Amino acid sequence: MVIIMDFSALQAVREKNPLIHCITNYVTVNDCANILLACGASPIMAEDVHEMEEIASAASGLLINIGTITEDKLESILLAGKTANENSRPVILDPVGAGATAFRLGIVKEILQSIHIDVIKGNSAEICALVNENERTAHGVDAGESVRSLSETTDVAAMLCRDTGAVVMVTGETDIITDGSKAIYVKNGHPFLSKITGSGCMLGALTAAYYGAQPSLEAAASAAVCMGYAGELAYARMTEKHGGSGTFRVFLIDAVNQMTAEMLERGAKLDV
Amino acid sequence: MVIIMDFSALQAVREKNPLIHCITNYVTVNDCANILLACGASPIMAEDVHEMEEIASAASGLLINIGTITEDKLESILLAGKTANENSRPVILDPVGAGATAFRLGIVKEILQSIHIDVIKGNSAEICALVNENERTAHGVDAGESVRSLSETTDVAAMLCRDTGAVVMVTGETDIITDGSKAIYVKNGHPFLSKITGSGCMLGALTAAYYGAQPSLEAAASAAVCMGYAGELAYARMTEKHGGSGTFRVFLIDAVNQMTAEMLERGAKLDV
Amino acid sequence: MVIIMDFSALQAVREKNPLIHCITNYVTVNDCANILLACGASPIMAEDVHEMEEIASAASGLLINIGTITEDKLESILLAGKTANENSRPVILDPVGAGATAFRLGIVKEILQSIHIDVIKGNSAEICALVNENERTAHGVDAGESVRSLSETTDVAAMLCRDTGAVVMVTGETDIITDGSKAIYVKNGHPFLSKITGSGCMLGALTAAYYGAQPSLEAAASAAVCMGYAGELAYARMTEKHGGSGTFRVFLIDAVNQMTAEMLERGAKLDV
Repeated sequence: MVIIMDFSALQAVREKNPLIHCITNYVTVNDCANILLACGASPIMAEDVHEMEEIASAASGLLINIGTITEDKLESILLAGKTANENSRPVILDPVGAGATAFRLGIVKEILQSIHIDVIKGNSAEICALVNENERTAHGVDAGESVRSLSETTDVAAMLCRDTGAVVMVTGETDIITDGSKAIYVKNGHPFLSKITGSGCMLGALTAAYYGAQPSLEAAASAAVCMGYAGELAYARMTEKHGGSGTFRVFLIDAVNQMTAEMLERGAKLDV
Repeated sequence: MVIIMDFSALQAVREKNPLIHCITNYVTVNDCANILLACGASPIMAEDVHEMEEIASAASGLLINIGTITEDKLESILLAGKTANENSRPVILDPVGAGATAFRLGIVKEILQSIHIDVIKGNSAEICALVNENERTAHGVDAGESVRSLSETTDVAAMLCRDTGAVVMVTGETDIITDGSKAIYVKNGHPFLSKITGSGCMLGALTAAYYGAQPSLEAAASAAVCMGYAGELAYARMTEKHGGSGTFRVFLIDAVNQMTAEMLERGAKLDV
Repeated sequence: MVIIMDFSALQAVREKNPLIHCITNYVTVNDCANILLACGASPIMAEDVHEMEEIASAASGLLINIGTITEDKLESILLAGKTANENSRPVILDPVGAGATAFRLGIVKEILQSIHIDVIKGNSAEICALVNENERTAHGVDAGESVRSLSETTDVAAMLCRDTGAVVMVTGETDIITDGSKAIYVKNGHPFLSKITGSGCMLGALTAAYYGAQPSLEAAASAAVCMGYAGELAYARMTEKHGGSGTFRVFLIDAVNQMTAEMLERGAKLDV
């Protein structure tokens, strides 16, 4: 079966140059800024509570990444999110490590209760941790369970869609992007993406850019295709002399920078 | 007309290895540290108020960059600046986003009222935002106005020189470096510099190194030539395989690392 | 004399994939994360006091790097360290700039009094600053003294071993790794390592990975050989076109990523 998907979000980013307000972690913040510039968007990192309203209302989208979250940033996150909501700017949440500590899960739940999130992107452990306790019991969903079929993970993601009204992206060997009724499966990617820091955070930023320029399920899925396919291209460019994870990271950003909608169409490995 | 400029600041940095104390943003802090090392200076990043006096007095220069400023850092900035002033160490200010929010403008005004700044480097919007309100009205300077001729921008920069006693560098397609009486125009650069994060911050750091080693208008202008020409060289080195913004960033740091005064003389595109 | 050293820690990291909890500085945090992934370990950066116990007990080792330390992080560091101690997880301390300010020395002394440290890694100035005041006077050790023979530095390091019960690594042209009774000297390395930021911090992270997977003097020494030899390999790969400090940094991470125990055996320059 040939699956037709609309990759026009890539071009929409290049044309609209959306400004993405990022409140993110200090490990990969430079990577996030560079991937946003590479794809045609513009980053602005800001987190003092006194400028959240001005910046969040000026931006085309808000990325919240809790990778090195501390309690004192929560007030800024909530104010930026509230402002983005009021101005109909999409909010993308990357709940890094939500399944790892009670503190992070608590932070994410407070965010989800206070702000409407448009896209939640996480790995299977993170997404499962966020699903409503009652539903999890009712459906036997156990966040601690590490092996779950693609179909089961899709069900969990769909629950989170219903709980939150968000598009949910679950990353893994196959990425799942769903709005609760329709699901797109993206099989692009390369194991080397896990040998550098920031692959996941950069996908969150890319999703904010694509969704900020064109708020649709296919835009979010396009971001997943772009990052995964860029990983494949980066790996293919490596040689004996220019090999290793340092080079891979450089080639990955190059590939996102050079990507076109035609390349995505040609390279996408999709399923529905 | 042949313009003769003194590029000896580059060699002075290599010989004196100035230690630059940086209080900067977490997005591009790694880039700033690497560009300082690449040009022959040494970086020290420190921001706890308890060590500001020891570090600022030991360093050859202080770089203040407000890229991700939060209110709690202001005390450290002011103490470091005061210490640098008392010890006759040059202070370089990069007022990132000063025109974007009232909070940032307020922070910068408090800095300018409390510390003598030796060099202020910013883009046109940032520099215009800093010009004294009264003068702005008197001269019809409107920070919100986006199109301003080179001559008008030079006038605004000169006002800021008079307000503050600082050398002012306005970055753009043509960089303006002025002390209020003399202006040097630098036409080096490449559009690709805007496809990576940190170009502007790295120029601020480079200016701190050059000015820290040799406090003069020409030293500041040399830093602008160096960064712009390095961008040209980095772009020229790109190939189909080693192209894209990831590679450009690597080549940019390489070019600053390999730059010589002779290369600056040959590559400089100047106007006065 | 042929020195036989056991480099199996490299393979142990690849097999065990140790999770290293890092509380580190924001200048080189991205480099630390990437070097951990490059060598086969996994990084987790976290610093909110509310999640220190969960994360430090889940991790295989804790890295404390005070490169941009602020007072408000001390509580988290002490709690993470105490948790690591209670769970018999090794703690690696990188006392960046301990000799530079009274504030940093005070922080490090408080850490050493509160936590058992397994490995302390620093340059000569940092290590000498940590040696107990009384012993320093008794043995005439002067932290301010910049020229000290290898044998004298080994004596200072051995004092710190006795004071703290830690393995001590003193970096320099020759690295010294000692537990107070045995000393291993590592002569690998390249001057270019000082032209990029993060060489020292990355060695601290690598040591945490190696020692986390295999807690032994030889594991710590293997990390020093790996970083030094990777620097030699990275330099050797440079060409006119791919030269400069930007490229060196990429090749350095590549070399750590591609390193094998056989390469370490072949490349090690050791003395005892």
